Amino acid sequence: MIQASQFINIVLVETSHPGNIGSTARAMKNMGLNRLSLVRPKKFPHADAKALAGNAQDILEQVNLFDSVTDAIGESKYVLATSARERSIDWPIVNVRDGSAKLHALALEGTETSIIFGKEDSGLSNEELQLANEHLIIPTDQDYPVLNLAMSVQLVCYELFMNASEGMAYEWQDFPVYTQKELDNLIEHFCSTSFDLGLIDKNNPKQIITRIERMFRRLYPDKMEGNFLRGFLTAVNKKIK
Amino acid sequence: MIQASQFINIVLVETSHPGNIGSTARAMKNMGLNRLSLVRPKKFPHADAKALAGNAQDILEQVNLFDSVTDAIGESKYVLATSARERSIDWPIVNVRDGSAKLHALALEGTETSIIFGKEDSGLSNEELQLANEHLIIPTDQDYPVLNLAMSVQLVCYELFMNASEGMAYEWQDFPVYTQKELDNLIEHFCSTSFDLGLIDKNNPKQIITRIERMFRRLYPDKMEGNFLRGFLTAVNKKIK
Repeated sequence: MIQASQFINIVLVETSHPGNIGSTARAMKNMGLNRLSLVRPKKFPHADAKALAGNAQDILEQVNLFDSVTDAIGESKYVLATSARERSIDWPIVNVRDGSAKLHALALEGTETSIIFGKEDSGLSNEELQLANEHLIIPTDQDYPVLNLAMSVQLVCYELFMNASEGMAYEWQDFPVYTQKELDNLIEHFCSTSFDLGLIDKNNPKQIITRIERMFRRLYPDKMEGNFLRGFLTAVNKKIK
Repeated sequence: MIQASQFINIVLVETSHPGNIGSTARAMKNMGLNRLSLVRPKKFPHADAKALAGNAQDILEQVNLFDSVTDAIGESKYVLATSARERSIDWPIVNVRDGSAKLHALALEGTETSIIFGKEDSGLSNEELQLANEHLIIPTDQDYPVLNLAMSVQLVCYELFMNASEGMAYEWQDFPVYTQKELDNLIEHFCSTSFDLGLIDKNNPKQIITRIERMFRRLYPDKMEGNFLRGFLTAVNKKIK
């Protein structure tokens, strides 16, 4: 189970096929998550849910049932709603990689979070979508952009797991990840050094600073990498002065 | 369809449940891939495959059937075999993110590649695993590390799509990705500057250089980001001289 799991609430709304609920439970447990909320499921409990959950029966048994999305998200302070691209006009959009990184970072600090998935055929209603802080988009090919519901859950849970230290630590990360604060400091240091080197237009700094910030947040350095970059910038600062 | 799709061959070996073949076809098409090879499927064609393929019937119709994994991978010069962690002793291991990035980069240059997925219950045999250049691991929680077959395919195809310019371009990447050559040059420039700043032990440079390389390859900058970093390094070089 990942460290932040108690603060990450996966919400399925009006799911038609109980098999998708079972596959969702398995996808969650594979990625170290365990809090599943169901809003007005068509058929639950159901044999198909049990069959597809595999060894994640415990998640089905602990499911929380709700009458409305508002009730299901409860005290969550950061809510992502999955959405097809064209539905998300006039609402902040985040892709699954960046959105999962942000949500995981908040959950790790103890902030209650929820991720809402709509009906198989029609997704979430506009009213439900407006309960979210941001809309989460999973990039897909334009020839066939409609993902199976449980596949969407699997991709989100995978990205969350990759952000959890357990996921990141495996294989390539031998050191703990940088905390948000350490990452903020690194970004600030890089920006101030870029200023000193005359690389940022002082009259219009915003666009390039946003790009730098996005780049480092995507990189998500571990402590070894982050400390090397800080040392690099300090060495540069000495040359400038 | 992603640009590299014709050079990426997804191979399912001795699949028991035809539904998984259908879900695989859908997962592939959702992520812009279309070349599916089946080695000795238990039941194919089958109504369950059709039902779960959704709008990816074209992929099922164009499936290539083979008697052996060797035949299925054919002329592939880079082959990844999915494997559970404990099976992969004494073979190069790569995680799904890094492995997909490498395979996609090769396919984009026109190299034939294959990704092999084993049986639902027992995975690939040791003989089959040894046909691969590297073993691909999907990070999972240790409490329940067994992913559904089609879910594994979905995660691999998603990572491939995120590496394809179509996937990367969406949302956060407004500029084309750096080519491998441009990325190589950036890494070399960063390493030589780190040397000049006295940050790399000249007697034992290898470990830190490997870490730097891994960090930048993970970052996978777009042209705007890469060019900004090159400009940053050039400005630093001027201060050093």
